[in-house]
Amino acid sequence: MRPPYHHPEQHFGASQTVRDVVLGAADGLTVPFALAAGLAGAISSTNIIVTAGLAEIVAGAIAMGLGGYLAARSESDHYASEYRREAREIVEIPHEERREVAKVLAEYGLEGEALGRAVDAISANPRRWVDFMMRFELGLERPAARRAVSSAGTIGAAYFGGGLVPLVPYILLPSATQALWLSAAVTLVTLLVLGTIKGKMTGMPPLRSGIQTVVIGSVAAAVAYLVARWVSS
Amino acid sequence: MRPPYHHPEQHFGASQTVRDVVLGAADGLTVPFALAAGLAGAISSTNIIVTAGLAEIVAGAIAMGLGGYLAARSESDHYASEYRREAREIVEIPHEERREVAKVLAEYGLEGEALGRAVDAISANPRRWVDFMMRFELGLERPAARRAVSSAGTIGAAYFGGGLVPLVPYILLPSATQALWLSAAVTLVTLLVLGTIKGKMTGMPPLRSGIQTVVIGSVAAAVAYLVARWVSS
Repeated sequence: MRPPYHHPEQHFGASQTVRDVVLGAADGLTVPFALAAGLAGAISSTNIIVTAGLAEIVAGAIAMGLGGYLAARSESDHYASEYRREAREIVEIPHEERREVAKVLAEYGLEGEALGRAVDAISANPRRWVDFMMRFELGLERPAARRAVSSAGTIGAAYFGGGLVPLVPYILLPSATQALWLSAAVTLVTLLVLGTIKGKMTGMPPLRSGIQTVVIGSVAAAVAYLVARWVSS
Repeated sequence: MRPPYHHPEQHFGASQTVRDVVLGAADGLTVPFALAAGLAGAISSTNIIVTAGLAEIVAGAIAMGLGGYLAARSESDHYASEYRREAREIVEIPHEERREVAKVLAEYGLEGEALGRAVDAISANPRRWVDFMMRFELGLERPAARRAVSSAGTIGAAYFGGGLVPLVPYILLPSATQALWLSAAVTLVTLLVLGTIKGKMTGMPPLRSGIQTVVIGSVAAAVAYLVARWVSS
């Protein structure tokens, strides 16, 4: 669900880890908040709400962290196998592969001798030739394998940490209804802050990003509340 | 968490909608399954488990559907604003922009006259020139705006539908412990099937994808179960 913004000229000063923490925490706040709000509309035991909330955040953190790690590994394997295939193809069917290079460049207006020379230059070096095919024909970027592993861990941990924010009021207060209001206040403010930072990092207008994040969380919580009341009545 | 595989030569026969349904449902199964399993380890009332499960899946479906829709709209706005900026820059600072085209092509071995001619050809047509900058300098693909809206709706609905699978046993059976075993069996088989289809669609070895999906679901459920037992004891 994250838009792939890669604008090199709009670099935000944060490190990649800060980015992972913000994205993971914003994701982690929404569903546990809505789940706890929904349960608060149906049952009065804060113990059960906290149990359900913690079960949700550990499950969500594992699904995001482990899921992200395995997806990153598959992506890296996929890249490596496509790379080997292209490397084999430029040896086995060089004419076909030259034609594919020409096809990509022709789309941008190269023709005649200029096209021929550009194709010659790219296919003169096998490594560059394969790199060109990977990026421009297949649209695959070389994945940073090691980064992905630590990134998945950070996102999973941040999801867990973010998920604790809406639960803390249910741990501290004896009444589920009171806890619900405190949880809503704390969560929506945190979502506004995280959404705004997220906007800064992804190149989106920060306030718009902040408000969107709050709207998603509010709508999800309101509907969960209504559904839980309806089911339990 | 979805690896961006775009291999045009490995096209799976399914339409984009089928793809959205499979991805949404696979995501939707994991956390509600783990949440219900966790609660089954802590409380015996299937009513509360069903209430919590339904609150989770509506919240998750809204977070994914609405979140996905808003992210797609932002991405589309971001593309449009970057496009306008590049279109302005090739008019206002054409020399700088020509140098950027040359820089991209030089990385693939073009030099001297071949490079000059290629840059001339690309910058001869403003539309192609901007397209080249968007794709090769900024790494931005033109987002399909209308697709994204229906896609977000489909993914949200599929998340909801997938989430019902692990809950049905808790609705039908009176005992949470019995329901847990049936839920685990039904969910893990469904995850294996969805993971396998997902593998076929993303170009990953299908069996490996199926097993990964099952492993993520099992680990998340097992940890949620242990945490819920520990919290409630």
